[in-house]
Amino acid sequence: MVSWNNLDTLNAYSQLLETKDDVKLAEVMAGESGAERVAKYAIPMAGGLTYHYAAKKVNDDILEKLCALAKEAQLAEKFEELYNGAVINTTEKRHVLHQLTRGQLGKDVMADGVNKREFYKAQQEKIADFAGKVHSGAITNENGEKFNTVVQIGIGGSDLGPRAIYLALENWAITNDTLKMKAKFISNVDPDDPVGVLRDVDLAHALFIVVSKSGTTLETLTNELFVKDALEKAGLDVSKHMLAVTSETSPMAKNSGYLAAFFMDDYIGGRYSTSSAVGNTILALAFGPDIFARFLDGMAAEDKIAACPDPMKNPEMMDALISVYERNVLGYGITALLPYSQALSRFPAHLQQASMESNGKSVNRFGEPMNYKTGEVIFGEPGTNGQHSFYQLLHQGTDIIPLQFVGFRKSQNEKDVEVKGSTSQKKLCANVAAQMVAFACGKDDENPAKCFAGERPSSIIIGEQLTPEACGALLAHYENKFMFQGFLWNINSFDQEGVQLGKVLATRVLEHNTDGALKGFAELLGV
Amino acid sequence: MVSWNNLDTLNAYSQLLETKDDVKLAEVMAGESGAERVAKYAIPMAGGLTYHYAAKKVNDDILEKLCALAKEAQLAEKFEELYNGAVINTTEKRHVLHQLTRGQLGKDVMADGVNKREFYKAQQEKIADFAGKVHSGAITNENGEKFNTVVQIGIGGSDLGPRAIYLALENWAITNDTLKMKAKFISNVDPDDPVGVLRDVDLAHALFIVVSKSGTTLETLTNELFVKDALEKAGLDVSKHMLAVTSETSPMAKNSGYLAAFFMDDYIGGRYSTSSAVGNTILALAFGPDIFARFLDGMAAEDKIAACPDPMKNPEMMDALISVYERNVLGYGITALLPYSQALSRFPAHLQQASMESNGKSVNRFGEPMNYKTGEVIFGEPGTNGQHSFYQLLHQGTDIIPLQFVGFRKSQNEKDVEVKGSTSQKKLCANVAAQMVAFACGKDDENPAKCFAGERPSSIIIGEQLTPEACGALLAHYENKFMFQGFLWNINSFDQEGVQLGKVLATRVLEHNTDGALKGFAELLGV
Repeated sequence: MVSWNNLDTLNAYSQLLETKDDVKLAEVMAGESGAERVAKYAIPMAGGLTYHYAAKKVNDDILEKLCALAKEAQLAEKFEELYNGAVINTTEKRHVLHQLTRGQLGKDVMADGVNKREFYKAQQEKIADFAGKVHSGAITNENGEKFNTVVQIGIGGSDLGPRAIYLALENWAITNDTLKMKAKFISNVDPDDPVGVLRDVDLAHALFIVVSKSGTTLETLTNELFVKDALEKAGLDVSKHMLAVTSETSPMAKNSGYLAAFFMDDYIGGRYSTSSAVGNTILALAFGPDIFARFLDGMAAEDKIAACPDPMKNPEMMDALISVYERNVLGYGITALLPYSQALSRFPAHLQQASMESNGKSVNRFGEPMNYKTGEVIFGEPGTNGQHSFYQLLHQGTDIIPLQFVGFRKSQNEKDVEVKGSTSQKKLCANVAAQMVAFACGKDDENPAKCFAGERPSSIIIGEQLTPEACGALLAHYENKFMFQGFLWNINSFDQEGVQLGKVLATRVLEHNTDGALKGFAELLGV
Repeated sequence: MVSWNNLDTLNAYSQLLETKDDVKLAEVMAGESGAERVAKYAIPMAGGLTYHYAAKKVNDDILEKLCALAKEAQLAEKFEELYNGAVINTTEKRHVLHQLTRGQLGKDVMADGVNKREFYKAQQEKIADFAGKVHSGAITNENGEKFNTVVQIGIGGSDLGPRAIYLALENWAITNDTLKMKAKFISNVDPDDPVGVLRDVDLAHALFIVVSKSGTTLETLTNELFVKDALEKAGLDVSKHMLAVTSETSPMAKNSGYLAAFFMDDYIGGRYSTSSAVGNTILALAFGPDIFARFLDGMAAEDKIAACPDPMKNPEMMDALISVYERNVLGYGITALLPYSQALSRFPAHLQQASMESNGKSVNRFGEPMNYKTGEVIFGEPGTNGQHSFYQLLHQGTDIIPLQFVGFRKSQNEKDVEVKGSTSQKKLCANVAAQMVAFACGKDDENPAKCFAGERPSSIIIGEQLTPEACGALLAHYENKFMFQGFLWNINSFDQEGVQLGKVLATRVLEHNTDGALKGFAELLGV
């Protein structure tokens, strides 16, 4: 049995707080020993990736204490309980099974009277079969013509993850001649969103996937009606164009208005649902089921690595431990996510959700207040773009913001140009290496405005190319990192009670049942 | 003459620090007085907008002290010096003239031997003339066919602002039948960026604008060659497809390889260049010069309001004062920007640059260190999307993050659907009102996981519709806010020395002139 304790009750945490070691990055990164440090502070990952933490403010002593913390906090045991089916999401009394969509790490998990691994696999097979028929032309529109576009209607977890992964692999799929259908996304209740997206969609050849676990998400149902209205006005047979992804118990599940329905369940939170039917349906339709299977393989392989009890061999655990060291010992509160890959342009937005919704909590698993900070703010844009934007503050601002870089040796396309003796890809890679060292080591200057204090820690995940496997491993890395952070902070990373109050008040506004400032603002906004 | 002093040397700041008033939002926002507060704490803006700060932790006493601070810090006088042509950018010894691109607020400003207002107007007229000829078909491609697409090649300030404004007005322009050309953007040195964008561009009918003030931005020149290569391979006449936007002294200015060149100058920082030729060229080509003129009118009108010395009538000054109160007295370090408008999807990314590059500084105007925090981290996504993502942390996380909302009573399109008794637009507006009150007032609950502590301050800018004028006023609001913040912190908001070190090190990597960790990382990245 594991025991759940607040971070500040752990001996290993007290040891960390008492650490007097101030690791000076400008010193440890210099010279031959700097190069050795880069080689040594690295952990292999799945998908050809490696996690590097040489530019973090750690040394062997601190690493030892972090390993002790992992052990005392029973990180590996807690993950084991989770994947063996314990009710880890205590507030909602639910299993947490997103890892089970991509592989069986432990025992069979039975729930709702079925083996859940079998249930997830059955959905994958159903989706693969359906996608195959759409691609082959066995399933067509009302005129017997093939579909060419798939549009996801969903918000939050039903939007950000699938969208980020579609964008991550779109170029790769085109280069490798496996883009079967273009994908588009409608999410916002702002009517300008569906209007703008639909303008560029060939309705007659488009499939729409309505994604809502509960079948009651107001934004999604509203946008579904928006789309149905457009289909009807175009004289199309609505039921030939609409799919549902929902839970088996939702009102959407038994609705004959859909061409097909695929299922997820309550054991997978929206922000962790990319590997479930939520991401599967659109990604298998866009890229083919075999490509989605390769993406899942990357996730499964990384999950397996995350189950290793030794943090020195477990990049997810190490990343989580260092982040908690930065958050709670060094006092940093924000992390910037900086992928040097245009394909990962919306990856930071997805991880912003996954992290902040999971760990932005003020009470522990037992509903008690804690004496330490939890979840951090995550933001980021792809490099090199960010270098010409907000990096100024990262380099010379008054707060230290830890950085997480991602880089690949090869681009997704073959095409490149050589300018001033190097290709674009080499320039991209040279920049990320340069930034890491600039942040870590800084630079003195007679002119104080040109001084760089340095000592700004970063990590980097490096891969050969952003393939489906690498993409899966990358996503599983962060999902598991956020889980381990939650274990360390002793919070429930799998509920989201903080989204409820706004919903209740919005309903009240629409019913004109308000007073005070709420009434005032509602009137100003014309409601 | 104004005098430049550190924030913590000002009497009014000491008064603020000594303020014992803890404004409880849950109390002041309730009941009849809450509604009155909403009506009272509001400042009219240009473009039909109003700035509302009723949900900020201020009262009449604190506002009085903030007004005293504005006076003692000479905010209005400093702005006056700036627009009258003083060398406010002291490190680079330059005037700061972006406001002059949209109107003459003060005296004539002479520089480089010319009247700068006349110079900017002349560029606007040249661009309007050129755009008119492209739209009428007087300027065509090599086959006498009209152009239908315009692609900006630029990075940082040459990308984010023009892109954000194009997206902000694209739907509006289509609805109002004034979209003349589609616009696209290439920015990243990652070759996957130009490859992906060019795939969707009809090259034969595309105009490309190469934007670099210095004419030496490596990313931009590299992507220019990428595009030229594609044009040549398509058998097109490169010089018929390329425009330049640069400074008159740059190598790009006298290059006969461009169909036309339009000029900006050193007195406008990249992040403030949307109202210069940098934004003008692409936006006038996309929407027509008259629409861009309306956008500038909105900016000019807001600039005029920003020149008012009374913070109670100056929303830019008030926003800056409250933000410094939050940053330096209340100790908050991050601001979330949350537009309830899908059209503003990239507005937060642009303002992230504008703010963080301007005010992420650790030394004052004189190169001296300061004893207080400066520039904050800015992040954000459109609502209601964010509600289903990172709002969990904003509501229940352990840090308080001030919020800036934007909302409009009308959508940009006429189309809407009514679901459960309300349109999508009403739902959108009901949600933003609800969120403001949820953040401010919170909610108690027996279950601690369902408790909302509240007391999370926010402001909102409300308008009728996101028109060109409203869009201009909104952008000018933030530009001027960041300027006033810089005046309060006594920093130079108009240089960006923090971007240099990375460039130097990247060049060294490409020349294989490295050692230590830099060599290690470069090798791992295949450089």
